[in-house]
Amino acid sequence: MSAEVISLRERGSQPSLAPMLALTAPGMNSVNAVILDRMQSEIPLIPALAGHLIAGGGKRMRPMLTVAGAELCGYQGTRHHKLAAAVEFIHTATLLHDDVVDGSETRRGKAAANIVFGNPATVLVGDFLFTRSFELMVEDGSLKVLKILSTASSIIAAGEVDQLTAQRRIETSEDHYLDIIGSKTAALFAAATRISAVIAEKGEAEELALDSYGRNLGIAFQLVDDAIDYDSEAAESGKDKGDDFREGKMTLPVILAYARGNAEERKFWEDAIAGFRCDDEDLAHAITLINKHGCVEATRERARMYAQRAIDALSIFPSGAARDAMAEAVQFAVARRY
Amino acid sequence: MSAEVISLRERGSQPSLAPMLALTAPGMNSVNAVILDRMQSEIPLIPALAGHLIAGGGKRMRPMLTVAGAELCGYQGTRHHKLAAAVEFIHTATLLHDDVVDGSETRRGKAAANIVFGNPATVLVGDFLFTRSFELMVEDGSLKVLKILSTASSIIAAGEVDQLTAQRRIETSEDHYLDIIGSKTAALFAAATRISAVIAEKGEAEELALDSYGRNLGIAFQLVDDAIDYDSEAAESGKDKGDDFREGKMTLPVILAYARGNAEERKFWEDAIAGFRCDDEDLAHAITLINKHGCVEATRERARMYAQRAIDALSIFPSGAARDAMAEAVQFAVARRY
Repeated sequence: MSAEVISLRERGSQPSLAPMLALTAPGMNSVNAVILDRMQSEIPLIPALAGHLIAGGGKRMRPMLTVAGAELCGYQGTRHHKLAAAVEFIHTATLLHDDVVDGSETRRGKAAANIVFGNPATVLVGDFLFTRSFELMVEDGSLKVLKILSTASSIIAAGEVDQLTAQRRIETSEDHYLDIIGSKTAALFAAATRISAVIAEKGEAEELALDSYGRNLGIAFQLVDDAIDYDSEAAESGKDKGDDFREGKMTLPVILAYARGNAEERKFWEDAIAGFRCDDEDLAHAITLINKHGCVEATRERARMYAQRAIDALSIFPSGAARDAMAEAVQFAVARRY
Repeated sequence: MSAEVISLRERGSQPSLAPMLALTAPGMNSVNAVILDRMQSEIPLIPALAGHLIAGGGKRMRPMLTVAGAELCGYQGTRHHKLAAAVEFIHTATLLHDDVVDGSETRRGKAAANIVFGNPATVLVGDFLFTRSFELMVEDGSLKVLKILSTASSIIAAGEVDQLTAQRRIETSEDHYLDIIGSKTAALFAAATRISAVIAEKGEAEELALDSYGRNLGIAFQLVDDAIDYDSEAAESGKDKGDDFREGKMTLPVILAYARGNAEERKFWEDAIAGFRCDDEDLAHAITLINKHGCVEATRERARMYAQRAIDALSIFPSGAARDAMAEAVQFAVARRY
């Protein structure tokens, strides 16, 4: 672990995403052009629905990781533009299907695609984007990249099923939860970053380091996401609060609150996760219990541990602007409150 | 076109699928083993749901085409086993999502997966099978095969969206309908057969011939499927009648009956396809109108034209058991009444 990296935490100011955005801006312009070009189709409903979500913003975090990794590896070509777009299409397809599965009402501050266009169109356009992502990978033509991304896609899909299985099951353990987020979230972060080392023709050490960076960042990111859903201090951020609670999702704040609760509290959690107590008053009580046992902070603390692992994984790369930006992006991800 | 092939129609007996089944039996045993092996997962819901559909039978027509094509090309290896399984997984994923999109109640004579396991699990396990199919292709490692199958997958997905767009739109033309079935059905038939020529390292002529065979068979097959849904003579076959009608799907029998109908009949079709007349009495009236104008037979006649094209495409291959079996399978497909 390098001194330059760890200094980010110690200099006292808030970590910023600005260096990461600056590092990846030129590459992301090209990636966005590929995304907009390749979501087109003669069937008007496809760009309409895909555009609703894609034009709705989103942080483009996963393709940004591919671009940042390419910068870190000193890659000079353009292959990462198509591949980063493929990564974003996989993610977009997953979001569309997630919103159908969860019956979501909003996404990125707008009505979710399933609300605007209905479940059937949302399922089928998700399928289309998924096949389009594979076309992009096949056009690139690297079997190694294809293997990394097809394996990641399969792990994500299995993780989504696993999460569905765990829903409304109070007995879900922290280990099981970590398996789920490792699959449904961190696998794509890991693959997105790893493929940069492959196209830059770096060695296995660099590949594994970037895989570890992405994977640990992905876990940290998901842990913070799950913490925010119960964070009373983040209440005004605009994020829809309590969706996880109402859907009976076993995320780490709940797992910890259940583990740390007394008999009465555990009874509450059993009823709530089973779906018998999920109105606003129940959500308020859930947040009270989670705060009482410090479970948001405990979840964030675990996130910081994975964040540190992600930063440590960068240590084999030469110091410089790319590495600093990628390290600070991790700090930013775990410090965020929205 | 060879005399051996055309003689099938002239010999007066019903065409049989038996030669095709005999030709492909050893290969299909291996394919089925791959299917059963690769639908497994540590997440129990995945094999449970996938198995519900896969073990529910189905004709395994698409992988059978890959195996038959390999036999026709004299291919001696085993690569087609994994690839045929990949083809079946693409098809299975599509069926699962179709059943969610259509709100189907039965499939292959059993309760549909969406009824037994719910929409969320059905969407997500469909996704899993789709990613698994890509893993199988990547394991095979041929970029040419990957290109054929990823392109076909994308065309299928776009075709499914196109079909959804055309649903309940009485103005759908025969050309538009043919585009839709060319995408949603025939593209996978074409790709399934074409890849056999690729792995057998045949030339472009054989590839295109097998593509044409599969594509035209696919169109013929779908036309017959759509005819059967309104065929009063096939009423006792056990297939659920009238699903297309109730869902407002613009299939060829309806397109023809609307085109051939008088003003009063056209008004009926407009109301019915819009969803205002879809009870059992309306279905009976629809069947009466379709029979009055000979639209089932007209649809079957078009199917026979595509079937003939499929058979003609085989003429560049040497005569023999494989070619005869594949030609007779086409005849069987268009003659079927269930």
